[in-house]
Amino acid sequence: MVCEHGRCAGVFETLPPKYASLPVEDFWDKLIIPGLVDLHTHAPQFAFRGTGGDLELLDWLNACAFPEEKAYGDLDYAERAYDCFVEDLYIGATTRACVFGTKHRKATAGLMEMLDETGLVTFVGKVNMDRNVPEDYVETTEESVAETKKWLGHVRRMNLKHTSPIITPRFTPSCSRPLMEELGRIAEKLDLSVQSHLSENQDEIEWVKKLEPDCRCYAETYDRAGLLRKGRTVMAHCVWSDEEELALLKNRGVVIAHCPGSNINVRSGAAPVSKYLDMGLKVGLGSDVAGGPSSSMFAAMRDAVTVSKLRWRLTDQSVRPLTFPEVFYMATMGGGAFFGKVGAFLEGYEFDAVVLDDENLQTIRAFSPAERAERLMYLMDDRNVTGKYVQGRKLY
Amino acid sequence: MVCEHGRCAGVFETLPPKYASLPVEDFWDKLIIPGLVDLHTHAPQFAFRGTGGDLELLDWLNACAFPEEKAYGDLDYAERAYDCFVEDLYIGATTRACVFGTKHRKATAGLMEMLDETGLVTFVGKVNMDRNVPEDYVETTEESVAETKKWLGHVRRMNLKHTSPIITPRFTPSCSRPLMEELGRIAEKLDLSVQSHLSENQDEIEWVKKLEPDCRCYAETYDRAGLLRKGRTVMAHCVWSDEEELALLKNRGVVIAHCPGSNINVRSGAAPVSKYLDMGLKVGLGSDVAGGPSSSMFAAMRDAVTVSKLRWRLTDQSVRPLTFPEVFYMATMGGGAFFGKVGAFLEGYEFDAVVLDDENLQTIRAFSPAERAERLMYLMDDRNVTGKYVQGRKLY
Repeated sequence: MVCEHGRCAGVFETLPPKYASLPVEDFWDKLIIPGLVDLHTHAPQFAFRGTGGDLELLDWLNACAFPEEKAYGDLDYAERAYDCFVEDLYIGATTRACVFGTKHRKATAGLMEMLDETGLVTFVGKVNMDRNVPEDYVETTEESVAETKKWLGHVRRMNLKHTSPIITPRFTPSCSRPLMEELGRIAEKLDLSVQSHLSENQDEIEWVKKLEPDCRCYAETYDRAGLLRKGRTVMAHCVWSDEEELALLKNRGVVIAHCPGSNINVRSGAAPVSKYLDMGLKVGLGSDVAGGPSSSMFAAMRDAVTVSKLRWRLTDQSVRPLTFPEVFYMATMGGGAFFGKVGAFLEGYEFDAVVLDDENLQTIRAFSPAERAERLMYLMDDRNVTGKYVQGRKLY
Repeated sequence: MVCEHGRCAGVFETLPPKYASLPVEDFWDKLIIPGLVDLHTHAPQFAFRGTGGDLELLDWLNACAFPEEKAYGDLDYAERAYDCFVEDLYIGATTRACVFGTKHRKATAGLMEMLDETGLVTFVGKVNMDRNVPEDYVETTEESVAETKKWLGHVRRMNLKHTSPIITPRFTPSCSRPLMEELGRIAEKLDLSVQSHLSENQDEIEWVKKLEPDCRCYAETYDRAGLLRKGRTVMAHCVWSDEEELALLKNRGVVIAHCPGSNINVRSGAAPVSKYLDMGLKVGLGSDVAGGPSSSMFAAMRDAVTVSKLRWRLTDQSVRPLTFPEVFYMATMGGGAFFGKVGAFLEGYEFDAVVLDDENLQTIRAFSPAERAERLMYLMDDRNVTGKYVQGRKLY
């Protein structure tokens, strides 16, 4: 496998003579896979991951998510908490991520600085929300816009190398139309990407219908504000999107972040993902920490297969279960598409690679590379990650 | 926590004076939980765990399970393969297990010897099957019975301390009525426990109806042969058991081994487990390696919650999702009941304990013991297991 100027130049049986002068690293019989892409995670929720698992989404937001997030107004607390999140991301198989911060611009900028130092490539957003959030955590519309502009100015002056700001309305229930429209204008003016949540839970969708009765579907609440930017918007979940919504997502080139661990945990449902893939929608995977208890993208692949198999068995055999190659695609090229030519060892793709040592998965059997790869989904965790490259840079 | 003569004498705020002379071990702020019980696993399938995940049960049996199992006629192969299985069981959080071997009596006796040396408490069975199994792996009825008797004699002479034989008809599709009846007589005469599979997959159940048309339910095919021995039989799966079958299981005190990882993986379905618990049925958890990809009972708990939440969301909100305390109960006392007074730190219970170090699950938050326990289900694996006691014996 040849890496030149941060990009993959190809995979060869024997090294072509023109690359003879490049330094060589030999990983023997270790597995080398493209870096994994986490399209949706919440940095401030990492602190309570793996607890509160007996609650549904909207109760969980009030009991777990909001109380923790508001603590990030304290910069010292934020720094210590984000240190755990960043270290976890660094040691695992993830090379790229789309990250939610909190409403606090300083803590979010601090998180961006810490992430930038790791060498991982990330989008990070200061969260916007001006309604239906506890009083001690909500913003006014004006504050939300003003703080976003300050945050963007601050980040620009920080000159980060690998970390970019992303416009992040929390979700329609907590963002008024004027706020959304202002965020749409900022995204357009500064040519920024956008991330949010869409059609995750049935109660949430009913709520959005009441809040925004003139929109034909939930996605339209973002679209009319210019927040479904062609190929530049990632929407988490899309569990319950109807045909009209799916057509809009396809038209706008929205990348869907399927977050099966979270959809299980807060009991949102089971997205018909193989149907989305067959329709030609763009789909990647997200851990959605801490709606999802695990930050591991191996777990996200496994959970995606789980949800699809149970959906197939329990409700609808017209939507086939996902296979390992499909979830591997989503965790690499599927999510990678949001970052450019990312997620495969194809010529011209950015060189993100993870080296896996599967020595601890003892067996008497001799497996093919494809079988060893399937086992990463079921049996591996961060201890199997022994090397990591991002854009050709060796992290370790 | 006091252990005397291999049993728990109680848990105390301060040590009662009468125990003052006992040696003390201090684990500081580590978690100590009852040892976990794996009620259903296949030792010879461990070798290919985490592969073949895109197949349904009956195809998977033919493509993955039977071809591997027949190799255990070679004692050298069996020993090397079982060494991996035994080591994995030893280092994880499991302290007790019900284990399927293969049809081979020598390899099965060898497995029992290896397990006995670990100090874990296990039931192990030579598998019986005289029909509907590939020609190169099937037994005749006479062979199956004769080999079982030889195996039981051999095991008796081995004088194992912690490992017991268990009668193991594979499942009704592969056991003729005469074989089942002979196994029932052996179990009765030698007062042995019994393990098998029941109502796992809809195609399997249809097949059993055709094979045994005079039985009102699948469980009756075992019961009429005397194989549902009062409180002494464990049946894996029971995903699709109807009211009549459940009544029979309750009457016979059958322990159900719920194997959610396997039920997901080979797409069997979602058992209504909270209903079983509410009915007063005995239910524990099984890894069902390699129908289940993981041998971890932490994963089994997580998968049980997953299956129950998706079942609740997708099909039937009258059967509530399982909570962490319920799956923790199943992994400890629920399955422990099959082994006697096992699975809790209650006075008189056998002292099985696992010491967990959760230091690697970095967070800024201070969690209660209950929250730390919930995190074991979502986030822990064998690296968190730093100490293990079985029947008061310190393994490490």
